[in-house]
Amino acid sequence: MFYQTIDILGTVAFAISGVLVAMEKRLDLFGVVIIAFVTSIGGGTLRDLLIGNTPVVWMRDLTYVATILITVIIGVIFVNQLKYFRKSLFLFDTIGIGLYTMLGIEKGLQADLSPIICIALGTMTASFGGVIRDILCNEIPVIFRKEIYATACILGGASYFLFTRFPIKEDYAYVAAICIVISLRLVAVKFKIRLPNIYKKEI
Amino acid sequence: MFYQTIDILGTVAFAISGVLVAMEKRLDLFGVVIIAFVTSIGGGTLRDLLIGNTPVVWMRDLTYVATILITVIIGVIFVNQLKYFRKSLFLFDTIGIGLYTMLGIEKGLQADLSPIICIALGTMTASFGGVIRDILCNEIPVIFRKEIYATACILGGASYFLFTRFPIKEDYAYVAAICIVISLRLVAVKFKIRLPNIYKKEI
Amino acid sequence: MFYQTIDILGTVAFAISGVLVAMEKRLDLFGVVIIAFVTSIGGGTLRDLLIGNTPVVWMRDLTYVATILITVIIGVIFVNQLKYFRKSLFLFDTIGIGLYTMLGIEKGLQADLSPIICIALGTMTASFGGVIRDILCNEIPVIFRKEIYATACILGGASYFLFTRFPIKEDYAYVAAICIVISLRLVAVKFKIRLPNIYKKEI
Repeated sequence: MFYQTIDILGTVAFAISGVLVAMEKRLDLFGVVIIAFVTSIGGGTLRDLLIGNTPVVWMRDLTYVATILITVIIGVIFVNQLKYFRKSLFLFDTIGIGLYTMLGIEKGLQADLSPIICIALGTMTASFGGVIRDILCNEIPVIFRKEIYATACILGGASYFLFTRFPIKEDYAYVAAICIVISLRLVAVKFKIRLPNIYKKEI
Repeated sequence: MFYQTIDILGTVAFAISGVLVAMEKRLDLFGVVIIAFVTSIGGGTLRDLLIGNTPVVWMRDLTYVATILITVIIGVIFVNQLKYFRKSLFLFDTIGIGLYTMLGIEKGLQADLSPIICIALGTMTASFGGVIRDILCNEIPVIFRKEIYATACILGGASYFLFTRFPIKEDYAYVAAICIVISLRLVAVKFKIRLPNIYKKEI
Repeated sequence: MFYQTIDILGTVAFAISGVLVAMEKRLDLFGVVIIAFVTSIGGGTLRDLLIGNTPVVWMRDLTYVATILITVIIGVIFVNQLKYFRKSLFLFDTIGIGLYTMLGIEKGLQADLSPIICIALGTMTASFGGVIRDILCNEIPVIFRKEIYATACILGGASYFLFTRFPIKEDYAYVAAICIVISLRLVAVKFKIRLPNIYKKEI
């Protein structure tokens, strides 16, 4: 119940982020719906395709589709009010990537894949919806350029496999990893931490 | 036999729409072939991937590949004459989306998916070839911006599920839904109907 | 052993080509890693998805992931020295597409697909990593515009099916086809051969 609530909140936050980007690009209503969809479920869909877990999950459980449609309707109507919720949205989004990361890792473990691939799947679940959104909107994906986002997922995911080596309950490791993803993201945004610049300064 | 003819005509129309876009972007011959391909079969391929219906259909039935290759050859040679057929092409294309919508819905039903997902699969089959074409050509997909296209598929698809609630033959419902998709598209283009503008006017 | 060495060298060459493109676009470290990945394994991944061969190969054999990560680290550190290896890199890349083409064809044969589809799968394996790289970097894919690349794969792949009609060992046909892909690419680059221009001259 608790997890499901967070899952829905994450879906909502991702969908709204899609709505905002799509409206900035002045897409029509259909475009807004599609962008909200891929932002929310694109990462998990890609993960399911790569593992071979089909039909993909949102086809079998309509909760996601319903959540996203309702979010889009509300988002489009109250788009001017959304700015007042920017902080809550950021929080949902951050909680969302924490949970999505662990969901992806779980799916990888169920498919008997190695830890490094599980971490990749977790990161993909959390961040590739945004990548597909940016491609559809004809932008270079933002997480390839300037956000600590995937890095939080990778480190948090790795921490899970570290924790499970110790004699602690798996549930605790699970929740701790989610908290680490969330904390890393919050800290990175708060202190404007980015990945080290690997380029020389231009003259 | 009748369906198959329409299917081929739809494939041809979609392939030519790909050829035209690719030539506008001045792609080379290989680029033109690939764009014609994805425009024609991209939507159905994505649908088959998401359902888990692999190897995808054009790998098992070479009719599509042959049709597209012949279309590209003829299209490239007679590109300057294509403008005289613009109306026929538009008609094929419109018939094509009608049929593709119902093909997608059928596949969804075969996979025991719910009506709303079936409608999504139908719309995807009919319209996502064009989306992939536009992404490969580095454009924001045109159906996200200004065409009543997907909307016709969605409404037509929904009408099918409405019809099947009444005691009429399934074949009739099938054909009626195709006609509705086609009519909606024709009417929308004729009267330049677009999705309502969800943006405030700019000053 | 021999094949595996070539496979690794091809993976390295593709990964470095990804690193170079990503750094030109000034992506951050995560972006560079992802672009290196998709350039290397994107073509094979798409092929496996379309055939339904999941979980895709790099999830089950970590050699690829390890190779690419090491390549990225070395590539990023020695990026300024990479220009001195341009010729070797081009050679690896060319050997890579030869081998990848035949790898793709083999997977198609294992899935009982027809020769024309096998050739398409081979070409996809060799060249679609670059296509996905270019899409993620917001460019029209370079092989759609000006390189004899896919054409070498197609002709080399076709030669394999020609050779197997003669009473020669399959291994010989396999190696001969690889050599043909490589030679065609080398000759095309050496003599700046492109696909014939299908456009009229502009005034």
